[in-house]
Amino acid sequence: MNLDEFALIRSLAERLEQAAPGVVAGIGDDAAVLAGVDGDEWLVSTDTLVEGVHFLDATMRPEDVGWKALAVSISDIAAMGGRPRGAVLAVAVPKQGSWPAERLTALYDGVAEVCKTFACPLVGGDTVGTAGPLVLTSTVFGTVPAGGARLRSLAQPGDVVFVTGWVGVSAAGLEVLRRLAGLERAAAGGGVSPVGGTQGAQPAIGPAGLGGLAPDEVEYLVRAHRRPVPQVLAGEVLRRCGSNALNDISDGLANELNEIAEASQVRLRVRADKLPLHPAAINAGRRFGVPASDWAWYGGEDFELVGTAPPLAFARALAQLEAEGVRLTQIGRVEVGDGVIVEHPDGRLDILEPRGYNHFRE
Amino acid sequence: MNLDEFALIRSLAERLEQAAPGVVAGIGDDAAVLAGVDGDEWLVSTDTLVEGVHFLDATMRPEDVGWKALAVSISDIAAMGGRPRGAVLAVAVPKQGSWPAERLTALYDGVAEVCKTFACPLVGGDTVGTAGPLVLTSTVFGTVPAGGARLRSLAQPGDVVFVTGWVGVSAAGLEVLRRLAGLERAAAGGGVSPVGGTQGAQPAIGPAGLGGLAPDEVEYLVRAHRRPVPQVLAGEVLRRCGSNALNDISDGLANELNEIAEASQVRLRVRADKLPLHPAAINAGRRFGVPASDWAWYGGEDFELVGTAPPLAFARALAQLEAEGVRLTQIGRVEVGDGVIVEHPDGRLDILEPRGYNHFRE
Repeated sequence: MNLDEFALIRSLAERLEQAAPGVVAGIGDDAAVLAGVDGDEWLVSTDTLVEGVHFLDATMRPEDVGWKALAVSISDIAAMGGRPRGAVLAVAVPKQGSWPAERLTALYDGVAEVCKTFACPLVGGDTVGTAGPLVLTSTVFGTVPAGGARLRSLAQPGDVVFVTGWVGVSAAGLEVLRRLAGLERAAAGGGVSPVGGTQGAQPAIGPAGLGGLAPDEVEYLVRAHRRPVPQVLAGEVLRRCGSNALNDISDGLANELNEIAEASQVRLRVRADKLPLHPAAINAGRRFGVPASDWAWYGGEDFELVGTAPPLAFARALAQLEAEGVRLTQIGRVEVGDGVIVEHPDGRLDILEPRGYNHFRE
Repeated sequence: MNLDEFALIRSLAERLEQAAPGVVAGIGDDAAVLAGVDGDEWLVSTDTLVEGVHFLDATMRPEDVGWKALAVSISDIAAMGGRPRGAVLAVAVPKQGSWPAERLTALYDGVAEVCKTFACPLVGGDTVGTAGPLVLTSTVFGTVPAGGARLRSLAQPGDVVFVTGWVGVSAAGLEVLRRLAGLERAAAGGGVSPVGGTQGAQPAIGPAGLGGLAPDEVEYLVRAHRRPVPQVLAGEVLRRCGSNALNDISDGLANELNEIAEASQVRLRVRADKLPLHPAAINAGRRFGVPASDWAWYGGEDFELVGTAPPLAFARALAQLEAEGVRLTQIGRVEVGDGVIVEHPDGRLDILEPRGYNHFRE
């Protein structure tokens, strides 16, 4: 990290300062200025990604890291039923030179892409050097009509439990990437084992080590991991249609369902056979000897939404989202009680514990 | 960093979630919810502090680091003429154990103190582990009446140039702390030289190595460095009284004045003999053989405000701030032209270049 690199990042960030509606003043002053909307409340979410903890060079390209750094916070805004309005990104860059100009430029290309996709202009940031690994902290602001924020404490007995999209595809994609990179999956307890000096290399996507998974399945799952899509539209539709609790799936469905049950003091009863598992994930699970449902329950980082809604509100949202090409699936019901119960097709009942996959986090 | 420490930080942060007016929902959901104020705009500022780059164990206690981590962003909101409304703090904690529970608790004590002092509730955050040094990223949100944000581009020829408080005291305090800790000040180019294994130790404040500086002077300067005070009240008064450009002094007066001159396309002419130098800083400068004005021009981190105002607006603000016990000093005038000119008492004119002190930054 030298002065040229600071100047580079500043210019990359300033390039992103879109003349967006609502941005009164962006990068370049003490603080950014965003227009208020009378009658709206503000939403704020912050997330940090650390190289080697939340992502590995072997599985995420710099542009994917840039995308994900903001997507994770935009997803939190979606999970409140809000609309993103602006973001700031603080970057601590390793001084020892592992992030030269071309990698930083690629990272900001990913930032630019996610900002453009979600009409969420980058309005500020900070760039510093560090003796440690790359650290990215994004903070995203959104708005929601006053009183409309969808808290996880709002579930009511009688509600439908639903998820958007496919769940578990990000974790399945990570497993594909780990196999492509020659990283062995560690047993319970985490830990990363780079094998054969592949760390830092970008794997060419091919069939090796994947048990004959089709190239389009590989591509789909890899993209699901590298470019998870926050469900901003779905969150707004669900709010307007009268849904109650809402969470994004950042830490796996098991955690998110338990958070809703606990915050709302209700029981969620879900059916294992209703989980929306993508055919590519099911196929990968078969070939790798892992039930695809494990990725769904414990995988996380899908950035899909999970929530509850009164049956009529659910029906309205289902119709509107179908028209938009967004999947919405009922997976269960809210009852009086506590905890999360899974019903298996054979009638067996399990208590779903709030645990995550924790690939390589500590 | 282990799971207990994550839980500790979560509990420390949640303890800070004040039932503050304007906080609709704080820590614990996907995003915090802040009440909007009709007719107001929102201000957003983010800053990152890295251990070993922005602060050293030898000169800053954990509670000082916590204070400063948020104060730096609150100061940016003050510099826009705004009022802070809430903050989020992301913390990347070294895994190797250099920040055990008691140090993290002390750090959050400092966070609690700055939040309480400025009525700026902590409404969210993120806690992660890192293989590197401690990294703190604060993001502070504020509000300002629509159109009222004091940008650095607003200076007009004929304006008075002013500063609040004393300038250079933070840099003088850092020099005192470095001498107490046995750190030799590096020559131009930066770099830190711990001498005699003092790194990590907290110096007892005493007269050794300080050339007989009085204990109350030492205490004043040390506090000025460790606990700089954002000028929120002054920023609001200056805005209401009709001041134009406004900056906080984070990188030294030379940088801030040049930023205003450049952004406003004007020339600032300031008088060296008008700099408000604190008697303790002047005395320390004499004893250390450093002109105290160097600390003022190049030192930074005072978090005082520098700006410009039409003469009548300045007079109004001066009267109001005097009544509040806040110093406001005219140091010069805005002219047609560019750059920053310093007039010395002997009639000599200098061009003030935009450079900082850069003690140990890269």
